[in-house]
Amino acid sequence: MFYTTDRNEHGLPHDPFKAIVSPRPIGWISTRARDGSVNLAPYSFFNAVSDSPKLVMFSSAGMKDSASIAVETGEFVANLATESLARQLNRTSADAPRGVSEFGIAGLTEAPCRLVAAPRVAESPAALECRVTESFHPKGIDGAPSHYFMVIGEVVAVHVDEAILKDGMIDTALARPLSRLGYLDYAVTAEVFQMRRPRTPDASDV
Amino acid sequence: MFYTTDRNEHGLPHDPFKAIVSPRPIGWISTRARDGSVNLAPYSFFNAVSDSPKLVMFSSAGMKDSASIAVETGEFVANLATESLARQLNRTSADAPRGVSEFGIAGLTEAPCRLVAAPRVAESPAALECRVTESFHPKGIDGAPSHYFMVIGEVVAVHVDEAILKDGMIDTALARPLSRLGYLDYAVTAEVFQMRRPRTPDASDV
Repeated sequence: MFYTTDRNEHGLPHDPFKAIVSPRPIGWISTRARDGSVNLAPYSFFNAVSDSPKLVMFSSAGMKDSASIAVETGEFVANLATESLARQLNRTSADAPRGVSEFGIAGLTEAPCRLVAAPRVAESPAALECRVTESFHPKGIDGAPSHYFMVIGEVVAVHVDEAILKDGMIDTALARPLSRLGYLDYAVTAEVFQMRRPRTPDASDV
Repeated sequence: MFYTTDRNEHGLPHDPFKAIVSPRPIGWISTRARDGSVNLAPYSFFNAVSDSPKLVMFSSAGMKDSASIAVETGEFVANLATESLARQLNRTSADAPRGVSEFGIAGLTEAPCRLVAAPRVAESPAALECRVTESFHPKGIDGAPSHYFMVIGEVVAVHVDEAILKDGMIDTALARPLSRLGYLDYAVTAEVFQMRRPRTPDASDV
């Protein structure tokens, strides 16, 4: 099937767009507002965009607390969401009033960061302390800004629980990261295979 | 364990950054240069950044062919990478000389798009025809541009093979999308669970 997005007449019960861009990693973003209150919410429009310097982005549907506090304070933390935290993660996706901590709502523990004021999720096995570098509403082809707001930050510090390391490498079978698919769908990644990038396009090299 | 990225002294055999930001969806990006030649390469720094308008981004380590052709022509296609195409996908990750088609190298078939000149991968069950909206080198906290180059595009048309639909929804067990993890690791998503977002932060609503 084929459709153009100008009228988005896909004829399906639900728009398949997010199911096509999947599985999406989940940036479980924690922030601390200037008044000291903390915020925690999951974003699946999240990814690395550079590895040297290490930059990650998340894009928020509207100027939600995570995005506005990140911009106001210049800081956020991206926590790794894993299978054992799925129920808590989902609780943090509800819109809580600003000033009400989703840590408390979800029964999660704040752990201190070192270089940023925002707390990380103590129960999460990995966290990236980030400083905001750029933020903007991405534009459509008509030049009009989307209501989405993208925040890009540089990773200034990294926490990893040694319990998910094996031979010094993160073992996905131990970490079991969550991902977001389309509709109401989520997945857990627990099985892995390896492919070595061919040095040349010669097929015998693969 | 904890480390700061200023010196990146993680003490591990490999940098864990990409393994923490995972699983990453793979944008298998096809482009057609002005001279008519085609290009195809996988990007895992790829995601949606807005769903209305539908915007996707990919970020390229250096100004590789996909990024430079996308900017020159204003067009690219993001094809869905699936388990059955893993070996071909890996072949397209080698640096082929500009003008040499990775479709040919990998034994893949060009299928025409409707609104853009770039071909899509006929063997892929879904493809997004995109027009470039913005592109830039993201900056680090020191203000210096990364060597990565981010391309954002609006999805103008969507192809979905009905073979991956069930009750009008994309069935991940049928599509079996690939994802990229850290190191040499890849995964397949084939099992799914559902969580309904709570309307309120009240725990009894979950």
